[in-house]
Amino acid sequence: MTTLPAAIIAALRTTLDPTLASTPGTTGVALHEPRFQGNEQRYVQDCIASTFVSSVGPYVDRFERELAAYTGARRAVAVVNGTAALQVALQLAGVEAGDEVIVPALTFVATANAVHYRGAIPHFADSAPDTLGLDPTALRDWLQTTTERTTGACRNRHTGRRLRALVPMHTFGHPCDLDGLLAIARDYRLTLVEDAAESLGSRYHGRHTGTFGLLGTLSFNGNKIITTGGGGAILTDDEHLADQAKHLTTTAKRPHRWEYVHDAIGYNFRLPNLNAALGCAQLEQLPVFLASKRRLYGRYRDAFAALPTVRLMQEPPGGDSNYWLQTLILEEGPAEFANASLANQRDAILTATNDAGLMTRPAWTLMHHLEPYRACPRAPLPVAESLAQRIINLPSSAGLA
Amino acid sequence: MTTLPAAIIAALRTTLDPTLASTPGTTGVALHEPRFQGNEQRYVQDCIASTFVSSVGPYVDRFERELAAYTGARRAVAVVNGTAALQVALQLAGVEAGDEVIVPALTFVATANAVHYRGAIPHFADSAPDTLGLDPTALRDWLQTTTERTTGACRNRHTGRRLRALVPMHTFGHPCDLDGLLAIARDYRLTLVEDAAESLGSRYHGRHTGTFGLLGTLSFNGNKIITTGGGGAILTDDEHLADQAKHLTTTAKRPHRWEYVHDAIGYNFRLPNLNAALGCAQLEQLPVFLASKRRLYGRYRDAFAALPTVRLMQEPPGGDSNYWLQTLILEEGPAEFANASLANQRDAILTATNDAGLMTRPAWTLMHHLEPYRACPRAPLPVAESLAQRIINLPSSAGLA
Repeated sequence: MTTLPAAIIAALRTTLDPTLASTPGTTGVALHEPRFQGNEQRYVQDCIASTFVSSVGPYVDRFERELAAYTGARRAVAVVNGTAALQVALQLAGVEAGDEVIVPALTFVATANAVHYRGAIPHFADSAPDTLGLDPTALRDWLQTTTERTTGACRNRHTGRRLRALVPMHTFGHPCDLDGLLAIARDYRLTLVEDAAESLGSRYHGRHTGTFGLLGTLSFNGNKIITTGGGGAILTDDEHLADQAKHLTTTAKRPHRWEYVHDAIGYNFRLPNLNAALGCAQLEQLPVFLASKRRLYGRYRDAFAALPTVRLMQEPPGGDSNYWLQTLILEEGPAEFANASLANQRDAILTATNDAGLMTRPAWTLMHHLEPYRACPRAPLPVAESLAQRIINLPSSAGLA
Repeated sequence: MTTLPAAIIAALRTTLDPTLASTPGTTGVALHEPRFQGNEQRYVQDCIASTFVSSVGPYVDRFERELAAYTGARRAVAVVNGTAALQVALQLAGVEAGDEVIVPALTFVATANAVHYRGAIPHFADSAPDTLGLDPTALRDWLQTTTERTTGACRNRHTGRRLRALVPMHTFGHPCDLDGLLAIARDYRLTLVEDAAESLGSRYHGRHTGTFGLLGTLSFNGNKIITTGGGGAILTDDEHLADQAKHLTTTAKRPHRWEYVHDAIGYNFRLPNLNAALGCAQLEQLPVFLASKRRLYGRYRDAFAALPTVRLMQEPPGGDSNYWLQTLILEEGPAEFANASLANQRDAILTATNDAGLMTRPAWTLMHHLEPYRACPRAPLPVAESLAQRIINLPSSAGLA
């Protein structure tokens, strides 16, 4: 009898070998590699030749214009990474020291860190199994029982702190239920800020993720669908907020021919022109990457169809996913086995696949299990706890299909 | 009679025209431009071809090794910019929320911002006219009258807050009086952290700036003596602190084949490999840049020798300056004219030179005059106030001489 790890390795090989066979010298398959087959070298060379490699330059302006055009946001402000983008977006959304901010427990640590950098406290909420993002139904129930609405603000009954913002994250590129979350934000007077770090190219009811909240943020880290080496962006339809974002991320220096007057405590969060040059070339390739990732999803779906104990994550209803990271979810077994045995099974699969040179990884450790965030307020998290034992990300690079 | 602005323009032209005449199409002279005449294109192309453009890669490791070797620090940790470097260095120096940190009033805003990001309060101190950096004599007098030493800590008598660290900055590349400041740090139990953002290549009694305190920080912003587009580094002789710096600047993720466990609230402050590739090439050019800047200093010195009302800033006793930014200092006039008329004279010079296409700029607005830092504690600042009216930075790019 074939074990599940062996069956998964066989399915991965079926999917990937035809691609890899044409790439001599390949010894293993990464989880996600960048791909530079367009104008990357040309733009970066041009950037260096111009000597404008740093905080100002035509590639920064162009990257911002093209990101806005692509996402449909009125404005995009390029910054040094996605964490910085979220930190500044939260500041512009009015998050102040001592506020609480709703974030998913199932996310990369940067979401919670950005809240912390503002002096605010992350308040963890549960995920929905079909989107892997914040579950509006569970969240509404939770807010109903734990918050009270006083003059103009939503307060946590237990901590007394103001809940100021709601930060959904589009996990692995799958849009979460924005309609439900926007309704909650309205009803509970929370400002919605989208962490779209993983979802460049993903749409919800046809509209690009990151453009539904007051502000949204993107990441162009090396493992993302497009990369600038390191980089991020703030999206918004509000011209004034965009101007403020630019001002705050460029040390809050007032424009002057020579004077150095900073009228607020800003940040050195500019995206260098060198990195923007790479970004402009990558953005040109994005449609190609999206098509490749969708093909890879189709191939994985076929390859895993015969395995009844796993489910391949597909785009949720209303969503067009970028399929940034392909995701296998182990089906829950009988109740008596529960999470512990699923986690064992997952670890056996992770070990076997990685040993075989096929890089896979589990979901992030849930935020409330990380030592620095253990004491933060949280809703019941049964779905996130279950998913965290069952998620396995598969090799997902553009170009694998 | 020639006015002072006209005389200064004439002196600048005498110095710069021979260089610029050989650069056809030059319409103006920048304050400081990067210069890419070594392996910049080659290393960056190689970096893109390798696909390792982001948070890990051989150029990051090499840049760190070579920075350590060049400066003589045991370790260098490359980060996303100089501000981030200082923020993390202060954290590692034990600066906590509510502490005060001594910084010069005469500095770029990043020095104060880094203190603020730690939740600490900058406490501004005066500069010495011969170094433009913190004046140990004035500082010792000030600490003597305003602080008390209780069990293990130095406290501000007026605010009750602990003074935790002392952050000298080597202004325009001129080493400040480190012997005097180290003695104060020892006597007042302050941890010395050097902001060497402007002084890569500058030495004090033969030893590289940034290596005297517990930690030191560098910047490779576009206007610095070498650039990575945006970038910085933390220097230290303490292996444990260096390891912590690396850990904190890479999201504090514990090494594991696949698990995502972050044991502290870290930062996404890694220097991308793409930027490190540029940095490796620039570091190879540093000796050439240093020689060029020293030649330019000599030419300016000759050109301005005939103007008795200005002084060209020269390296202070015991210091080998990198001459990052050439600096003209207007001599103080009779007491009755004082700062107001000096500032008028300075502005006339700034206007005339910039109008003539010769970019110059004044010192930064002093920190305690910036709205966000107005309420911070400060020593008497007569020298900084005076210097701020009298400093004019001149075109300083490597390659101008």
